[in-house]
Amino acid sequence: MTTPLQGNALVIQSGGPTAVINQSLAGIMKASSEYPQIDRVYGAHHGLHGLLYENFLDLSCEDPKIWKEIAGSPGAALGSARMKPKNSDIERIFQVFTAHNIKFVFYNGGNDSAEAAELIREAANERNYQVHILHVPKTIDNDLMETDHSPGYGSVAKVVSHIIAGDDLDNRSFYNSVKINVVMGRHAGWIAAATALAKKGHIDVEDHDELGPHLIYLPEVDFSEKKFLEDVQKTYNVLGRATIVVAEGIADKIDHNKFAGEVDEFGNSLLSSSGKLGDYLSSLISKNLKYRSEHGKLRCRADTLGYLQRSLAGMASLTDQKEAFMIGSMAVHYMMRNETDKMVTLVRAKGPTYQCETSLCDLKLVAQKTKLMPRSMINRNENGVTEEFFEYALPLIDGVPELRALKAAHVKKVLSDYHR
Amino acid sequence: MTTPLQGNALVIQSGGPTAVINQSLAGIMKASSEYPQIDRVYGAHHGLHGLLYENFLDLSCEDPKIWKEIAGSPGAALGSARMKPKNSDIERIFQVFTAHNIKFVFYNGGNDSAEAAELIREAANERNYQVHILHVPKTIDNDLMETDHSPGYGSVAKVVSHIIAGDDLDNRSFYNSVKINVVMGRHAGWIAAATALAKKGHIDVEDHDELGPHLIYLPEVDFSEKKFLEDVQKTYNVLGRATIVVAEGIADKIDHNKFAGEVDEFGNSLLSSSGKLGDYLSSLISKNLKYRSEHGKLRCRADTLGYLQRSLAGMASLTDQKEAFMIGSMAVHYMMRNETDKMVTLVRAKGPTYQCETSLCDLKLVAQKTKLMPRSMINRNENGVTEEFFEYALPLIDGVPELRALKAAHVKKVLSDYHR
Repeated sequence: MTTPLQGNALVIQSGGPTAVINQSLAGIMKASSEYPQIDRVYGAHHGLHGLLYENFLDLSCEDPKIWKEIAGSPGAALGSARMKPKNSDIERIFQVFTAHNIKFVFYNGGNDSAEAAELIREAANERNYQVHILHVPKTIDNDLMETDHSPGYGSVAKVVSHIIAGDDLDNRSFYNSVKINVVMGRHAGWIAAATALAKKGHIDVEDHDELGPHLIYLPEVDFSEKKFLEDVQKTYNVLGRATIVVAEGIADKIDHNKFAGEVDEFGNSLLSSSGKLGDYLSSLISKNLKYRSEHGKLRCRADTLGYLQRSLAGMASLTDQKEAFMIGSMAVHYMMRNETDKMVTLVRAKGPTYQCETSLCDLKLVAQKTKLMPRSMINRNENGVTEEFFEYALPLIDGVPELRALKAAHVKKVLSDYHR
Repeated sequence: MTTPLQGNALVIQSGGPTAVINQSLAGIMKASSEYPQIDRVYGAHHGLHGLLYENFLDLSCEDPKIWKEIAGSPGAALGSARMKPKNSDIERIFQVFTAHNIKFVFYNGGNDSAEAAELIREAANERNYQVHILHVPKTIDNDLMETDHSPGYGSVAKVVSHIIAGDDLDNRSFYNSVKINVVMGRHAGWIAAATALAKKGHIDVEDHDELGPHLIYLPEVDFSEKKFLEDVQKTYNVLGRATIVVAEGIADKIDHNKFAGEVDEFGNSLLSSSGKLGDYLSSLISKNLKYRSEHGKLRCRADTLGYLQRSLAGMASLTDQKEAFMIGSMAVHYMMRNETDKMVTLVRAKGPTYQCETSLCDLKLVAQKTKLMPRSMINRNENGVTEEFFEYALPLIDGVPELRALKAAHVKKVLSDYHR
């Protein structure tokens, strides 16, 4: 497929939005304006739904200055969808492509979108329809193969690291306090792991084990309720409290049916819109933890962080924003050099200073695959992360907040013990 | 009580922490260092528990430079507690006061702490124990009487406004999408109301009704499931989606027993550590909303924002930080002028520029009372806020994020309708 094409471009945003998904859109808009072979840029309104129902937004009409503001806003500006093209949809897609002279497709999504892009590619070949398709990666889950990390991950990592750092300080305010936080990430533990990052922002800490999250449960390892309770008891015995992070994906390791919700067209079940997993683990702890009653009752709380992880306004990582923009603009540059059927990837430069460049990989290496955390980033106790993970993820989140927990000397007691 | 006292000071942090609770502590430490009549400043370790069990932290030992870092960290640095002094505790409290020569008490908390401060005051009078007590206000709920607003509120208002602004953009990414967010605030709607603030950050918006949150349910008004469903249906009919905010306090208006959790020593039941209220409202909508099936299934999600509202690291409002510090330092200055048995209040200056000064009010006007939102800040439909609320709360949150939602023109359709 090396014939130079001329026609309209279509941008499709698919799946769950990220805080920087519109940066990639802005990058595509900026770079597209430099190429005369791209006539107009259309946006599929609500992803595949827009493509099937011929709902296109005419992005070339817009004042170019809006893209910077759109880029800084969370959510999928074009509208998204969680749909998979059916065999019966394929004919329609090419009718729409033909009717609107679509020659360039930028499919912005995760591993499901890569699968959809592949399906369209194969159908185009069968029909001899000339179209260039590139997959522009995007997922908070960071579970795409072949790329150092996925645009969207840096921002969610920043958000959850700030949340858990603050939550741990809130939790240590109380005696006998166990706090569980359920985070997103589907079947990969990257987001759960990122909750540890802000430990590095603490000032004057000798023992990093004292800082929460004290325990992180990742879908990459088996989950045992017995070991979970033993871990929590051990942490409680040393610190008198515990801040725990659980990846939503461990629900499957306990009992899929107990926690699973709706299923989308790709077969993904909804993991994150219910407090059930957190409530279940909280009740396990409440029933089993041996605690010091002289410090009062056990305080066990569970939060499920929910959609704010991917959408908190004003907290996107700068590195993530820049890279998402770069990925979008580079997708256009690659395509104008006749690249197609590939995903744009981030490649980390070797050396002491963090930097990423883009490259390309085959779509087949990405579609339907999930990049899990390597064992080398998971600690030996299988309830936390290693320094290798900190080195990997810290450059993605613009640094960590400077925090300090008070460790003042106790005043000598002079009275006899009190019994309330 | 006008005899000049000399002795040690005790700082008590009580109840739920805020993002700026340690600013007030830092203010107390700074101002205390200026007065020779204060020998040492002690912190009660875990609030009233520390006082009863004689667990004091010697804050005067610390390097003064740490207070700025402590002030910037969420959570109660001294440790907090949710305890009410029992009659049998009173004698012990004065044994401890006497043993440690406590002459100055700074009670940092909400309306429950004001009640505890009052109890201690009365007992001191009965015993002729000379001690000055000032209440240093702190609550995210903003429900303290007599003060323009409470330190801690500005930060939670900033956090929830950013969250809901982003959440609404995330929600509008999907067709047929209804999103419910349950926020804190106990029996007052101040936090729920604050979720509307970031609407003012949207660029180029003609119709502010289009921006979420579209519906806000406050504990100040009755809650009717019928009206709730009608409201959601109306919003859906116009916009094809809805972003809804619900104050946790409306749980009582539906069925207290259905959602209530643990009860603390003040009789407050735990409202916010369960997804039950959100799940219940979500199922109501799923069962009743009439939606456009040509846009796919109904997508109804509920998040309970949880403890991050008060503890998100790095996102405290600057105004809130400054005022919390000022309240702490002014408490010391007032006390050194022999003021006692009062709460430090914030008084908003009249005029075009926002500014607050401090004043004092009688403890009795605060203890066990709850400041609800006035009707003039609640809209006529009882599902949102008025401009008066925006004028009140916008100065407290350091401005709003600049956001833009895309409103591009649709490309003319050329094909016949598609039926999937």
